[in-house]
Amino acid sequence: MAKGRVSELIRNEKERQDLGFGTKITGQNTRLINKNGQFNFRLVGQDFRSKLNLYKRLIEMPWLKFSLLIFVLFLVVNFLFATIYYSLGTHHLQGIVGTNASEKYWESFFFSAQTLTTVGYGRISPIGFVTSAIAAIESLIGLLAFALATGLLYGKFSRPVAFIRYSETALIAPYLDTTALMFRIVNERDHQLIDMVAIVVFSLLETDKNGAKIRRYYTLDLERSKVAFFASNWTIVHPIIEGSPLWQKTEAEMLEAEAEVIISLNGHDDSFSQSVHSRNSYIAKEIVWNAKFVAMQEPAGQVTDVIMNKLSEYDLL
Amino acid sequence: MAKGRVSELIRNEKERQDLGFGTKITGQNTRLINKNGQFNFRLVGQDFRSKLNLYKRLIEMPWLKFSLLIFVLFLVVNFLFATIYYSLGTHHLQGIVGTNASEKYWESFFFSAQTLTTVGYGRISPIGFVTSAIAAIESLIGLLAFALATGLLYGKFSRPVAFIRYSETALIAPYLDTTALMFRIVNERDHQLIDMVAIVVFSLLETDKNGAKIRRYYTLDLERSKVAFFASNWTIVHPIIEGSPLWQKTEAEMLEAEAEVIISLNGHDDSFSQSVHSRNSYIAKEIVWNAKFVAMQEPAGQVTDVIMNKLSEYDLL
Amino acid sequence: MAKGRVSELIRNEKERQDLGFGTKITGQNTRLINKNGQFNFRLVGQDFRSKLNLYKRLIEMPWLKFSLLIFVLFLVVNFLFATIYYSLGTHHLQGIVGTNASEKYWESFFFSAQTLTTVGYGRISPIGFVTSAIAAIESLIGLLAFALATGLLYGKFSRPVAFIRYSETALIAPYLDTTALMFRIVNERDHQLIDMVAIVVFSLLETDKNGAKIRRYYTLDLERSKVAFFASNWTIVHPIIEGSPLWQKTEAEMLEAEAEVIISLNGHDDSFSQSVHSRNSYIAKEIVWNAKFVAMQEPAGQVTDVIMNKLSEYDLL
Amino acid sequence: MAKGRVSELIRNEKERQDLGFGTKITGQNTRLINKNGQFNFRLVGQDFRSKLNLYKRLIEMPWLKFSLLIFVLFLVVNFLFATIYYSLGTHHLQGIVGTNASEKYWESFFFSAQTLTTVGYGRISPIGFVTSAIAAIESLIGLLAFALATGLLYGKFSRPVAFIRYSETALIAPYLDTTALMFRIVNERDHQLIDMVAIVVFSLLETDKNGAKIRRYYTLDLERSKVAFFASNWTIVHPIIEGSPLWQKTEAEMLEAEAEVIISLNGHDDSFSQSVHSRNSYIAKEIVWNAKFVAMQEPAGQVTDVIMNKLSEYDLL
Repeated sequence: MAKGRVSELIRNEKERQDLGFGTKITGQNTRLINKNGQFNFRLVGQDFRSKLNLYKRLIEMPWLKFSLLIFVLFLVVNFLFATIYYSLGTHHLQGIVGTNASEKYWESFFFSAQTLTTVGYGRISPIGFVTSAIAAIESLIGLLAFALATGLLYGKFSRPVAFIRYSETALIAPYLDTTALMFRIVNERDHQLIDMVAIVVFSLLETDKNGAKIRRYYTLDLERSKVAFFASNWTIVHPIIEGSPLWQKTEAEMLEAEAEVIISLNGHDDSFSQSVHSRNSYIAKEIVWNAKFVAMQEPAGQVTDVIMNKLSEYDLL
Repeated sequence: MAKGRVSELIRNEKERQDLGFGTKITGQNTRLINKNGQFNFRLVGQDFRSKLNLYKRLIEMPWLKFSLLIFVLFLVVNFLFATIYYSLGTHHLQGIVGTNASEKYWESFFFSAQTLTTVGYGRISPIGFVTSAIAAIESLIGLLAFALATGLLYGKFSRPVAFIRYSETALIAPYLDTTALMFRIVNERDHQLIDMVAIVVFSLLETDKNGAKIRRYYTLDLERSKVAFFASNWTIVHPIIEGSPLWQKTEAEMLEAEAEVIISLNGHDDSFSQSVHSRNSYIAKEIVWNAKFVAMQEPAGQVTDVIMNKLSEYDLL
Repeated sequence: MAKGRVSELIRNEKERQDLGFGTKITGQNTRLINKNGQFNFRLVGQDFRSKLNLYKRLIEMPWLKFSLLIFVLFLVVNFLFATIYYSLGTHHLQGIVGTNASEKYWESFFFSAQTLTTVGYGRISPIGFVTSAIAAIESLIGLLAFALATGLLYGKFSRPVAFIRYSETALIAPYLDTTALMFRIVNERDHQLIDMVAIVVFSLLETDKNGAKIRRYYTLDLERSKVAFFASNWTIVHPIIEGSPLWQKTEAEMLEAEAEVIISLNGHDDSFSQSVHSRNSYIAKEIVWNAKFVAMQEPAGQVTDVIMNKLSEYDLL
Repeated sequence: MAKGRVSELIRNEKERQDLGFGTKITGQNTRLINKNGQFNFRLVGQDFRSKLNLYKRLIEMPWLKFSLLIFVLFLVVNFLFATIYYSLGTHHLQGIVGTNASEKYWESFFFSAQTLTTVGYGRISPIGFVTSAIAAIESLIGLLAFALATGLLYGKFSRPVAFIRYSETALIAPYLDTTALMFRIVNERDHQLIDMVAIVVFSLLETDKNGAKIRRYYTLDLERSKVAFFASNWTIVHPIIEGSPLWQKTEAEMLEAEAEVIISLNGHDDSFSQSVHSRNSYIAKEIVWNAKFVAMQEPAGQVTDVIMNKLSEYDLL
């Protein structure tokens, strides 16, 4: 008997759906998943390397910022070495023609740049042990820095990215003879995405037996949760029928319960043989009631056009 | 009752097979999948970066075109910098021996080339702040451009490609005591492809209750949909028995209904530990009736020969 | 009948759980899995290349040690070539200005460094066949060494690592109306880990029919063995109910039987599209009885904080 | 009725096991899978690029041969360019000090090497349009060749390889109260292989209804077909009980029927997050009857030793 009760409690706990966020995230109008797909957590007390997470940060940095960073680093390293060469005495840099301190410093600077990039014209060249040794080290550093840059550039290029754009809002629209929650996605690039699977979870605050607010999660049943080819656009549809956690919910109730529709998409990028993932969420106020998406596909002779800027367009009914 | 009707409508909708193309693609003799495996869609209104899709384009570019592009870029960048150096005054390029404008310009050009490739002989070397600074920037650009090229070349080399060739036509041939739709594939390279899975979908236009033409999709049941090792050739066979969507269809009907046989192959390239994919399709007029493929394998002593140019050969019956 | 007996023996053997370690590992207080996730085996008689396993070793080497190794190799190679150039006679190195043996040797050394890094200032340059040929070979070696370094640096950067930290101890804690074995993990970095699956195996020494000690393995049933998103922390819980191999085991019995809890985690690093794995184990003396983990998550306005240094903190009950 | 017969024929055909080799490979004592894991096929009529398959060939080439190839290419390219520079006239190479044709040619050669590696000392430097242009092109070629080499070296390093060694022979040994076919594998390196799955297929020639010899395939039922961790050694066992295709087969029968045991192993290399595959086969004369493998594992204090050179050792019974 006691055992029976144990089993039931445990069974309930096992059956409770949990996305990995726990039940305690209850409010202040936060969202679980940010619009960029990141989870809304902050790690406190990471060690320095984890906090820095240099590779990920560099890989995900926009190209312009990355280029600027490299340029700034190039300047900084050259100023550093220029100062060393200048301090060691410019008579150790054979071929310098500058006649005052400033000219000599800049010639040291450009000698450093020629060493770091291994261009080494040789008009200026190191002479004497210390300056030659520093120059040898600088050229080694240059080579390794450049090796790092090569790896990073390749990493940036080949990073798996799912080029999926989501409609700005989800809609509650008529569907067959009921209504449905729907949103729309489009494949932004001509990458061949195959075997796309969508998982949609509905999360909201509920009151438990003790009157405490806890967050619950329900996986939504979809009209179609997988497409073989995701070549253009796809409207993902959850029919609101009896048994759905949205059944007979009103807009006000969903706002009150801080409802959030969480989407996780998995597919395979055939062009680069990588699995790609994409996450998004719609909070209650991003759900429009009684509206219908406008068509995105238009036949155009031998081909079918997909009009991308109609992705978020809908007609209120 | 209303609920029952809802469920049935929704159930029908759920059961409808859809490859991700939708039901509205209805004609003008288009094909769904082009011969190169690309989907027959055109994205309208992509942003510039998506449209350009630089990495994919460079990776998929033929080697000759890629080499030519690099050479042209090399010339363009050198002309650009040559013009800058020349404008700044060739007295800032120590060592120039040219005596007229044209010779001086070309020496600036070759100085630029020596800087960009970091070969830096040093017969000509920059002197003065501005020219030295430009040269430093050019050598940095050279290094980064070369880092990019390294990444691209590796990307081109290691790109997952399924070296699968399809027979030019599919056949409707006698098979045991019925007929079957069949086509043949061959592994073009000595890559070890394992766990190859074939999915074949038959698509055609049908008329719905309202008399509108809609496109429907049926997955075809195969004699064998998976082989453990795809080392040589494989004839993929769909027996046409009762229940098959091709049962009692005539050639004329299939042409009329714009039938298309869509093939999706998945496997694992054991040599490079990549999953590889391949798609193809046969439209109605690429299906030959009453024909039989000729044999491709021939024993040759200790080894078995696979005669590749017999791939598409068939005998009319 | 005989056949029946065969089948039963074979069936028993088939049903025996085995992690791949065999049943003979019986003691001296060893552990099966070391704290770094490596298996506690030593391979005897590997061939040299397998023993060296150069790529893996270099990839897994800490950055500081790797940098030091490159620097030492750089010195060694330069000393080697310097000695060759010096032996061939410094009159083959045009431009040398040193006046004694030591100065000439160091100029040979720096000439070597300038050749290896391809900086090639040219103040010193090779003259004569042999020295020129050696220099040509050295510059080729420099380029290839640098190509290797580029590959290694990229390999080090992009190596799949699951940034998962485990609580230092597992706990036996009250759970609903029974007790449970539990331990806690945290995602150390802001990588998006998805579809994390935990497998937990309990291993202990038992006495077989003949009185011999053999090691047995039992997979533990978990409250939740998978989370869709592993964004922050996760307490993995095995409820100790009837049927559990821990049911009514005491602390003393587990120490005596050299019990070990083996954990294997699999997930997908969404940021780099790699599957990541992590292993750990708790031996009997790393299990604390009657204790409870303190909370790690704290709401902080719009975001939820995860306090990482509380990972291993527990309260004794 | 006719339909019933169709279905049965088709069902038989569907149930026929086929590894992808077909049924026609019938003899001359060939083997299906070579000892290096390659399939015993020869592709006839490949196009040139498929036949060459440059990337795969270079990636799989032994390191010594690869290094030699690079060195030879380096020489060839330099001889080529040296000949061009020499033909254009050595007065276009400023700084040449050679006094006869041979010396001048070799200085052209070393100038070429200095250009190709971008070391560019500058003692010799190009002067005049054509020679300068050729040198610019050579330095570009040098950079790109080196980019290719970088990619190839990384490809060679990171190539997925399953370091699995097989026992030289399979054994038919006593097992519980019957016999079993068994062979042994060992993990040669300290890579962590996980979730190793073994598939073993028994192939032999049989005589069909018409008296023709055809090759048939039977998947063997294994004592254990998967291990969670493959850290050391694993004996793969097929118990020969009623229903096994080896049941009551004699050694002579297996030799006569050209039996072959084909093994396919799949696992995940946790160290590099790659799936790895390995194939092997034992033909009839590589199966030893009435023998037993000697033990490979030995406890050694806190660790367990795996004695690798005992892999193929067995005792005749």
